Amino acid sequence: MPQKKIIIMTIYPVKGIRLASAAAGIRYADRDDIVIIECQAGTHCAAVFTQNRFSAAPVLLAKKHLNHVQPRALLINSGNANAGTGEQGVKNTIRCCQVLADNLHCDSNEVLPYSTGVIGEQLPVSAFSQAIPECIKTLSTDTDAWVHASKAIMTTDTVAKLFSRKINIAGKDVVITGMSKGAGMIRPNMATMLAYIATDAAIEPAALQKMLNMATAVSFNRITVDGDTSTNDACTLLASGAINMPAIEIGCAEFDQFTKAFIALMQDLAQAIIRDAEGATKFITINVSGAESEADCLAVAYTVAESPLVKTALFASDPNWGRILAAVGRAPVSELNINQVSISLNDVTIITAGEPDPGYTEEVGQVAVASTDITIDISLGNSAESVTVWTSDLSHEYVRINAEYRT
Amino acid sequence: MPQKKIIIMTIYPVKGIRLASAAAGIRYADRDDIVIIECQAGTHCAAVFTQNRFSAAPVLLAKKHLNHVQPRALLINSGNANAGTGEQGVKNTIRCCQVLADNLHCDSNEVLPYSTGVIGEQLPVSAFSQAIPECIKTLSTDTDAWVHASKAIMTTDTVAKLFSRKINIAGKDVVITGMSKGAGMIRPNMATMLAYIATDAAIEPAALQKMLNMATAVSFNRITVDGDTSTNDACTLLASGAINMPAIEIGCAEFDQFTKAFIALMQDLAQAIIRDAEGATKFITINVSGAESEADCLAVAYTVAESPLVKTALFASDPNWGRILAAVGRAPVSELNINQVSISLNDVTIITAGEPDPGYTEEVGQVAVASTDITIDISLGNSAESVTVWTSDLSHEYVRINAEYRT
Repeated sequence: MPQKKIIIMTIYPVKGIRLASAAAGIRYADRDDIVIIECQAGTHCAAVFTQNRFSAAPVLLAKKHLNHVQPRALLINSGNANAGTGEQGVKNTIRCCQVLADNLHCDSNEVLPYSTGVIGEQLPVSAFSQAIPECIKTLSTDTDAWVHASKAIMTTDTVAKLFSRKINIAGKDVVITGMSKGAGMIRPNMATMLAYIATDAAIEPAALQKMLNMATAVSFNRITVDGDTSTNDACTLLASGAINMPAIEIGCAEFDQFTKAFIALMQDLAQAIIRDAEGATKFITINVSGAESEADCLAVAYTVAESPLVKTALFASDPNWGRILAAVGRAPVSELNINQVSISLNDVTIITAGEPDPGYTEEVGQVAVASTDITIDISLGNSAESVTVWTSDLSHEYVRINAEYRT
Repeated sequence: MPQKKIIIMTIYPVKGIRLASAAAGIRYADRDDIVIIECQAGTHCAAVFTQNRFSAAPVLLAKKHLNHVQPRALLINSGNANAGTGEQGVKNTIRCCQVLADNLHCDSNEVLPYSTGVIGEQLPVSAFSQAIPECIKTLSTDTDAWVHASKAIMTTDTVAKLFSRKINIAGKDVVITGMSKGAGMIRPNMATMLAYIATDAAIEPAALQKMLNMATAVSFNRITVDGDTSTNDACTLLASGAINMPAIEIGCAEFDQFTKAFIALMQDLAQAIIRDAEGATKFITINVSGAESEADCLAVAYTVAESPLVKTALFASDPNWGRILAAVGRAPVSELNINQVSISLNDVTIITAGEPDPGYTEEVGQVAVASTDITIDISLGNSAESVTVWTSDLSHEYVRINAEYRT
């Protein structure tokens, strides 16, 4: 099994950002299922959302609100996706935002809604009305509030995903703390399942959105469990500006410094989703290089990453490299010269220049795939393009979870 | 479970086409694993092959031979795919063809080789040398020879797939008999796993290739089990011309008449692969209509057909239509107006014009997905385009088979 235990690491509170969780009874009994994140005045927000055309009602509304004002609060629930719910779904989301806005004395446009859970059922608004007034009494910047929130946003996840970093920028200690959720229906497309990252740094809105786009491209947009892009994916970055510092702008040295640390944190969060993927027993890194374009490298990487036959072979710890080769061969790329293709599994070379490597033996292949962490390197040619995609294997447990769970 | 029993139907022998099977011990003990199909002089042949760029050695050679001459014999084995075997794989195939050619007193160019089975292992040529001389002694046009051959080409198949039709063309009784194999690594692309169809009609080569292309497009190119296009797919059509009749040409009434019957037989063979799909418990028909182009209809159909989440929900007989909606929403099409999308499951309407249908209840949904045969109708708009794709569900058994079987 890949590492599924909670990593004991320091989680830094973020000045200016308070969190609270509560059990609203939307779907689950005896566990928190709503989270409120309150940001201090002046907080800047950037977000990316699912590209699924059946975007859920909260996605439609959060995008609309963000177009008008910077948010004062985020309202998240993990029992009901409020997707495929038509106009009634939008009305219900507006009412939930209004309840929170009334309690926090802000405008309902200043609330960003997020939902994950079952698709196609209407949101129980009364559960929100009842839970929110009590919930906001517990708003806190404490580390514990982050821990509880990271658990409350889980659905089929088996571990909470919470990471934190502290960096020194221009003489100031700056904190970045973030959480994510997701284990299935994972093939983010310009976004992810749900992720919330906050910093106390001051960052200009344009710079904030740019660093979020940059980081998403190499973290949440590089993972796949089952190729199924959710209707509710969203990744939100908050910068409270609670630290007294000049706001970070695009082009300055601090932008690069912050972005580097932020990308590392985003990759931690994205990889944690793959390590917790439904039924996963392996953590698989696929590096593809040498195609004519980055898009072609990605096409090959995702074709291998989403092949049920590759995934079941890796589940079985079977060095069945013929399935990797067959997946590379069917990838939708414009040009593929099989005489330039080389493939290795955890540094064991299998194919060299399109031919079986003479040094390969079944025994060394078996050792390579016995690991829980497996790296597949695929070289397609001599170009400088390269990409990395992370995925999981396909096990009995994936089928059991998804046959039993009502998305 | 979908129907997996052998359908008791009349299998007509094809004059001019003789078959024989034998146990060469290539992979399996105690079962036939090679098949020889001998065609009388003057037989015309058409074929389509896999689009996988890692085409297996026999695919490369069969294409080359067909470019030069019409075949006198087909040599098929089901133990070893001879794919990913490099130059040695091609040499081994040439040697096997030569052995059969020597025994049949023809040129080795006149032998078309086909392989299916494990990828990445070299072909045991001596097994062929030993088995072929005895095998050809049993060549026969009898129905039994077809039955034995259809069993000998199986790998993870659980039933043989053999169909036959007789039609009257211009006053003559004409026979079409065909067999296919395949249960996994199924997403044919201009071809299928292995299929062999023979007729005693006389058909001009250009007409033969045209009807094969037409029929493949709406049969083997409309099925998917797991999205994995094999390295060895091939579909071959033989017309012996043993019936004394004017050869069928493109444009004549007999062309349309024959093609109609041939398409029906090809769809029987293709659908039999889906009914026997690895671990399948459901037979799923996906009709998509109303998109701007046929390509867009197909993109939506295959996105739904290959979604692991849709497939596991159908395995569980769960009317979890949110997953169908999410798959439609992420399909790679240029235009999708969700307000025009309607979806039904076995005639139970779920989504009407992008909104949940007010008449839908969980109870009627449950009844709809309880069937072993499920039809999903997806209307995307008002265009006249429509396509049908057939697929299977994703079960525990699929994972077990593919974790244990070395492709």
